[in-house]
Amino acid sequence: MTDDTKSSNAMWGGRFAAGPDAIMEAINASISFDKRLYAQDIRGSRAHAAMLAATGILSNKDAEAIGEGLLTVLSEIEGGDFPFSTALEDIHMNVEARLKEIIGEPAGRLHTARSRNDQVATDFRLWVRDQADAAIASLTALMKVMVAQAEQGADWVMPGFTHLQTAQPVTWGHQMMAYVEMFARDRSRFEDARKRMNECPLGAAALAGTGFAIDRHMTAEALGFDRPAANSLDAVSDRDFALEFLSASAICAVHLSRLAEELVIWSSAQFRFVAMSDKWSTGSSIMPQKRNPDAAELIRAKIGRIMGATVALFTVMKGLPLAYSKDMQEDKEQVFDAADTLMLALAAMTGMIADLTVNTDKLEAAAANGFSTATDLADWLVREAGLPFRDAHHVTGTLVAMAEGKGCDLPDLTLEDMQSVHPALNDSVYDVLGVHNSVASRQSYGGTAPDQVRAQVARWKELLG
Amino acid sequence: MTDDTKSSNAMWGGRFAAGPDAIMEAINASISFDKRLYAQDIRGSRAHAAMLAATGILSNKDAEAIGEGLLTVLSEIEGGDFPFSTALEDIHMNVEARLKEIIGEPAGRLHTARSRNDQVATDFRLWVRDQADAAIASLTALMKVMVAQAEQGADWVMPGFTHLQTAQPVTWGHQMMAYVEMFARDRSRFEDARKRMNECPLGAAALAGTGFAIDRHMTAEALGFDRPAANSLDAVSDRDFALEFLSASAICAVHLSRLAEELVIWSSAQFRFVAMSDKWSTGSSIMPQKRNPDAAELIRAKIGRIMGATVALFTVMKGLPLAYSKDMQEDKEQVFDAADTLMLALAAMTGMIADLTVNTDKLEAAAANGFSTATDLADWLVREAGLPFRDAHHVTGTLVAMAEGKGCDLPDLTLEDMQSVHPALNDSVYDVLGVHNSVASRQSYGGTAPDQVRAQVARWKELLG
Amino acid sequence: MTDDTKSSNAMWGGRFAAGPDAIMEAINASISFDKRLYAQDIRGSRAHAAMLAATGILSNKDAEAIGEGLLTVLSEIEGGDFPFSTALEDIHMNVEARLKEIIGEPAGRLHTARSRNDQVATDFRLWVRDQADAAIASLTALMKVMVAQAEQGADWVMPGFTHLQTAQPVTWGHQMMAYVEMFARDRSRFEDARKRMNECPLGAAALAGTGFAIDRHMTAEALGFDRPAANSLDAVSDRDFALEFLSASAICAVHLSRLAEELVIWSSAQFRFVAMSDKWSTGSSIMPQKRNPDAAELIRAKIGRIMGATVALFTVMKGLPLAYSKDMQEDKEQVFDAADTLMLALAAMTGMIADLTVNTDKLEAAAANGFSTATDLADWLVREAGLPFRDAHHVTGTLVAMAEGKGCDLPDLTLEDMQSVHPALNDSVYDVLGVHNSVASRQSYGGTAPDQVRAQVARWKELLG
Amino acid sequence: MTDDTKSSNAMWGGRFAAGPDAIMEAINASISFDKRLYAQDIRGSRAHAAMLAATGILSNKDAEAIGEGLLTVLSEIEGGDFPFSTALEDIHMNVEARLKEIIGEPAGRLHTARSRNDQVATDFRLWVRDQADAAIASLTALMKVMVAQAEQGADWVMPGFTHLQTAQPVTWGHQMMAYVEMFARDRSRFEDARKRMNECPLGAAALAGTGFAIDRHMTAEALGFDRPAANSLDAVSDRDFALEFLSASAICAVHLSRLAEELVIWSSAQFRFVAMSDKWSTGSSIMPQKRNPDAAELIRAKIGRIMGATVALFTVMKGLPLAYSKDMQEDKEQVFDAADTLMLALAAMTGMIADLTVNTDKLEAAAANGFSTATDLADWLVREAGLPFRDAHHVTGTLVAMAEGKGCDLPDLTLEDMQSVHPALNDSVYDVLGVHNSVASRQSYGGTAPDQVRAQVARWKELLG
Repeated sequence: MTDDTKSSNAMWGGRFAAGPDAIMEAINASISFDKRLYAQDIRGSRAHAAMLAATGILSNKDAEAIGEGLLTVLSEIEGGDFPFSTALEDIHMNVEARLKEIIGEPAGRLHTARSRNDQVATDFRLWVRDQADAAIASLTALMKVMVAQAEQGADWVMPGFTHLQTAQPVTWGHQMMAYVEMFARDRSRFEDARKRMNECPLGAAALAGTGFAIDRHMTAEALGFDRPAANSLDAVSDRDFALEFLSASAICAVHLSRLAEELVIWSSAQFRFVAMSDKWSTGSSIMPQKRNPDAAELIRAKIGRIMGATVALFTVMKGLPLAYSKDMQEDKEQVFDAADTLMLALAAMTGMIADLTVNTDKLEAAAANGFSTATDLADWLVREAGLPFRDAHHVTGTLVAMAEGKGCDLPDLTLEDMQSVHPALNDSVYDVLGVHNSVASRQSYGGTAPDQVRAQVARWKELLG
Repeated sequence: MTDDTKSSNAMWGGRFAAGPDAIMEAINASISFDKRLYAQDIRGSRAHAAMLAATGILSNKDAEAIGEGLLTVLSEIEGGDFPFSTALEDIHMNVEARLKEIIGEPAGRLHTARSRNDQVATDFRLWVRDQADAAIASLTALMKVMVAQAEQGADWVMPGFTHLQTAQPVTWGHQMMAYVEMFARDRSRFEDARKRMNECPLGAAALAGTGFAIDRHMTAEALGFDRPAANSLDAVSDRDFALEFLSASAICAVHLSRLAEELVIWSSAQFRFVAMSDKWSTGSSIMPQKRNPDAAELIRAKIGRIMGATVALFTVMKGLPLAYSKDMQEDKEQVFDAADTLMLALAAMTGMIADLTVNTDKLEAAAANGFSTATDLADWLVREAGLPFRDAHHVTGTLVAMAEGKGCDLPDLTLEDMQSVHPALNDSVYDVLGVHNSVASRQSYGGTAPDQVRAQVARWKELLG
Repeated sequence: MTDDTKSSNAMWGGRFAAGPDAIMEAINASISFDKRLYAQDIRGSRAHAAMLAATGILSNKDAEAIGEGLLTVLSEIEGGDFPFSTALEDIHMNVEARLKEIIGEPAGRLHTARSRNDQVATDFRLWVRDQADAAIASLTALMKVMVAQAEQGADWVMPGFTHLQTAQPVTWGHQMMAYVEMFARDRSRFEDARKRMNECPLGAAALAGTGFAIDRHMTAEALGFDRPAANSLDAVSDRDFALEFLSASAICAVHLSRLAEELVIWSSAQFRFVAMSDKWSTGSSIMPQKRNPDAAELIRAKIGRIMGATVALFTVMKGLPLAYSKDMQEDKEQVFDAADTLMLALAAMTGMIADLTVNTDKLEAAAANGFSTATDLADWLVREAGLPFRDAHHVTGTLVAMAEGKGCDLPDLTLEDMQSVHPALNDSVYDVLGVHNSVASRQSYGGTAPDQVRAQVARWKELLG
Repeated sequence: MTDDTKSSNAMWGGRFAAGPDAIMEAINASISFDKRLYAQDIRGSRAHAAMLAATGILSNKDAEAIGEGLLTVLSEIEGGDFPFSTALEDIHMNVEARLKEIIGEPAGRLHTARSRNDQVATDFRLWVRDQADAAIASLTALMKVMVAQAEQGADWVMPGFTHLQTAQPVTWGHQMMAYVEMFARDRSRFEDARKRMNECPLGAAALAGTGFAIDRHMTAEALGFDRPAANSLDAVSDRDFALEFLSASAICAVHLSRLAEELVIWSSAQFRFVAMSDKWSTGSSIMPQKRNPDAAELIRAKIGRIMGATVALFTVMKGLPLAYSKDMQEDKEQVFDAADTLMLALAAMTGMIADLTVNTDKLEAAAANGFSTATDLADWLVREAGLPFRDAHHVTGTLVAMAEGKGCDLPDLTLEDMQSVHPALNDSVYDVLGVHNSVASRQSYGGTAPDQVRAQVARWKELLG
């Protein structure tokens, strides 16, 4: 899959005394994986033929034969009875050879003013662009189910953790909306990547452009590109669009791994915050009550696979001189696998979140654990009693220690107890000590208060349509 | 460097019987590296104090004392005589502790409605944003010198390689402009990343927001952010802005590694396409004529370092539950090192390209090597004689074999020789066989023809200002 | 840091009109980090000088002066008052230049039959070998504290998890010994790496060996190497010993990350299996009861840092032609950082495990959770009643469902209840249903039975000395 | 592919109201790739059944039926007509379900005292062990062809490069033998890895061992393991053997990438040091003289793929609590792909080296380039005239500058010219100035002198058998 100076054995003519043996075929042929590009390849060839006709380089008759013939090839492939040949090395030669069988001589004119180098760059870019669109759609679907979860539980109180230790109460809706923000940034990364990659390599030919009076703007437009690539060497040499797609996928996979980790922990017998639907977990023939969060674990693992693909392509591209080097044939499998993995993980996560059962009792009970409203008490001392922040912390620490000593929670301390530590404490302090009061008070923009969460839910419902 | 529930030993009070020993200090303290954030930390604190005063949470007098005191701390640090303390763990506590020494009690009020979690997220984001700006400026400088190289050599003919084999003649200017396109995309990646990260975490507090009636839009604006982050949990938990910065840096480093590889190869005795300036190479006490392309080699290597930093932070972030986990303290050193490395590599490459001596004779001689205009001949047969592309290739192959047999180049074949292979060949074919004719003919948009190159140079000179 | 054909500016003589400016110095000089190799560098030079004298290449008088002078340099560096110079680029030139100041002319003879290429390869190899030794010692220390934990808790029952779901009861000692096996393999990896790298590059000179009649076996022996490297090109070109050290470190860091994750989860309020010592956690000024497992989180993160260093050096080394390329100067910082990180993480983990408080009540209560002895019941049916495994599973599932329906545990079912499901069940089944009975029954070699654990503890105590 | 508490849908019974839909099947089922383990799975099951019979846990009749039935399954799979079922999820259930169809009820007894967890760990370990053996054999084959190349060209002179600049003459044989040393270390890494992984997990059961009186030493021996794994939790939880295999593969792939890079550069029109055989390059229909070093480029790229797989599995394993987590299902595809890639790359490199044509004229001409024997001249001054090394370098530099000025090479300077620079120079200096004299003089152990190379060739021929 590369420039025209290379091609299948059949075309080398007599100079190559020895045919490539099985090893060479195994390392060299790409048809086993690049056949996935068949639709893009045919679409690109059809646009190219139409342009050749429009510019008078090809007769209308030939162009029509080519266009029709390619549609036949397309339907053969989609019908599942196309005989892919490894001897023909790649999808481009497979399609062209079959075209020749179907329409004869005009097939040999299709490759005018084109090379395998710009052809594969175009095909692959079209494919990656499709995947960017798929990622955008999948992320939108996931965000919608997370917003729905957030709306439902905008006021469910749960522990907010730092270091997996209870820190402060938050709301379930707030936790869900945190991921909506992350996935929204992921989505915008794919949107930016799509825009940046949306330049058409076709017409760059092998590397230098062509002497035929082609119209690159026409093919660019026909294929939905914003413009033709402005430098033919760059167009056939770079794969940064693939690296960017992989990087954006890897960042998204990090977000997924974090949510998946939370789901795994929350599903443990010790937490029981959530119960996975049967659809997304597996059971045991012997412990029927047991549900293993398989889908969550697999999603958690997928960052490995996507990061691996990312490192692979970065390593391949390191230090390659321009223009095309055969090393670049390694680009496709990595991106194929990463894209498949990402779409699958997003779909599974969407299903899991949609089907999640939340144990609100468990959440609320855990929220109060560990004197989680101590910060609220300290803030009260700052706000109502005018203590400096650091002093308020000291007073609060003493009260927590007192409660711990008594084996009770902060709201269980009497006012007398409290005032023995600091005289400014009064009845109104109890207003901030319960977990519901605590979350309700976090009214700063973007805070965990149910009102704030509902405002964000409303904003996102509007944005997500 | 984390939420307020943790802090330096001095503040743990009496409960921690045993002090953290040397190992814990070594693994836990971040001041050795996060002191780099001092300017951002002080800037953030000043904006926070001003907002607290504007919203009536802090008295104007206290806010003024804090603001002035922080400026004193800033000048102490920049003056080089600030006594950083490892016992105070991080830059935030170092600054605050010194502030207290300077202004006394009001210093304890600065941390109102704030936490180390949103503080460090803000500091780090400001720092990374500065680096995005630096990358944009550095890339612009590099593009300018490459455009200048391209302008100078818009019509210098050189070999265009595929597989490091001569494929077709191209122009030096075209080769330079290929990298301009790559670096332009790199630059736009940093621009996109900058926009996406430009939301202010300040006011997210530990993770849940705050009950104080703060004005997050005011601090966001004061710090040059587009808006406050819309979810407090997300604001303190995510580091995707750092992952995106690293990914964009790694893609740019791939481009640099490719150009550096070309420079190393082109500097070899066998190529001699270019000669490095003394500034960017090192010599030998014993072989005075020898110049090692050290800077190019080091730039080539930097993708390793930046990719390493990228993998490091992705690995760290994998599977971390919300909100803050101490693991995230590992974010800074990786980004610091990657940013330093990138800026240095960009500066060195800019210098190297600016100072490059190009051996145009060597370039041109190499351009004709290997019958590099065979494609032009084949295209002539298609265009002028109406042969299908594949047939034209066959005829050309025969002519090349004939020339090789005679030990001459294609233009040295007589018309008689040529017509013995295909009768349609006529005198006008010689017009396309020289390397200058070849490149001049590649007039397709984005092609290597000097006119096309000059058009791109003009476009970029306008864009780069 | 490289071959003799390059060296500090001072030696380039007049040919380099322009001095390297600040950028070149910043990218090129290595003294800021390679000064860490001073002891190895001096040790290597002393061995080299002694060999030159023994082979008559150097006079005894000169060799003595060099040997003594190098000891002076060593004590100056260790005394902290050695004036490192960036203009002298690297540790080798810094040491040699200072030697010349101290002993004069004979210093210029030290570099006979040697090059910076074999010198740096020797220095770095000695350094990495020291780190392999350090890793071996650190792992031994960690294994000892884990064996001690295992001995103490050989019969403490706890849940064995799969998917973070309770699967079967195991013993604390068994869990600890699982990590002893992992760390033992890690240790043996460092032992193997040490053996493989223990060949001496000294005498390979720049790349080709030397015409001086040196005795490479003598220097190899003096420096504790098993033999001289058998190919001079290989000796100066390869860094696989560093890649292997990094890989072994990364595998060890994976093991550490898994143990650290368990400690973080076990420290949560929901699990409370263990309590970290104050030494290895940080507290809160406001929630004095709270302890954040900072050290465990940081250890968990260190795989990121070490994996990053690993990827960095692999990427650097990719595709470098022999022999020395300047790219290879990037080898040291990555290995330095990875080695420092690993030793610190191992020390911190050793401290944490030694100081761990285990809540045996919590462990035991959790062990019974989720009908964790269902497998024991199924095994009983196979063993005592002759049911096929799959049928036994079916019967057990029905009994678990019955217990779940009654809200009781398996041992709480009456024999009548049991026999209503399968008539072969009899009183002896109760022997296998308690968690203590369950673990005691796992007597297969390497099983979780306390006897088995104690046997492994005894084996390891003997092996660890 | 995991513990017995999970299994195919068919076994979940009625509790799972909703069947796993297509997404869950896509993310969860492993049969599409783990069917590659069929031979290992059947071999392990046969050993297990034999042991169960020997220990009286299974009747001889049942064991025989199982053993025979499994052979039938094996031949069905190898015959290509085994109906793999995705609903049965993995290879283990596919084999067992088919066994049940063939032999009926006794099939249900095979899984006694075993779990999918130890079963898959055993299968996978057997598979990886086979690949270690394959790597050892492939590396041996490669070393043999390289030794043959070295023997043939033990005295062919070529340039030794540093920084891709000519540094000193070396011999072709020496260059080849440098890689033999590297591949030998690679081979020993696989040998060490094989030894370390050669412990049998079978009998670890789900994670805790079993109450059945099994004989783990018997199954270990039957499967060629050195011993049973000593801790059941470790046996089912760790995949460090796979990480080590990947790391060793990645280091080997770095070596391959370096040799491949040299071949690509050496094949360029500018170098022409070597010509690839037709078998390992591809031609052009239009430029018949052109040969693209496709195989070398693809081998160079393979470090990307193998490094990607390595990073993938390290990332997956990071932070997984014991024992089995479903994340670990991601282990196989990465190792499968890396192993396939490595074996293919080794085979292709072996073929390429065996078929390589070396242009000895080009090598020798290039060897003299750039005053490459200047070091020999300097060494002569040290050795014969007693100059300190640094002074000798200075004198040599002056002579090189003189030769450069005269446009001649060092041996072309007259003795008068030479003595005008340093009076000690005499006729014997010409002995060291030619490239053949230079390499012949490098007689230090491991040096490039043909005698030294032949000694190493002899050593390796003996070692390689």
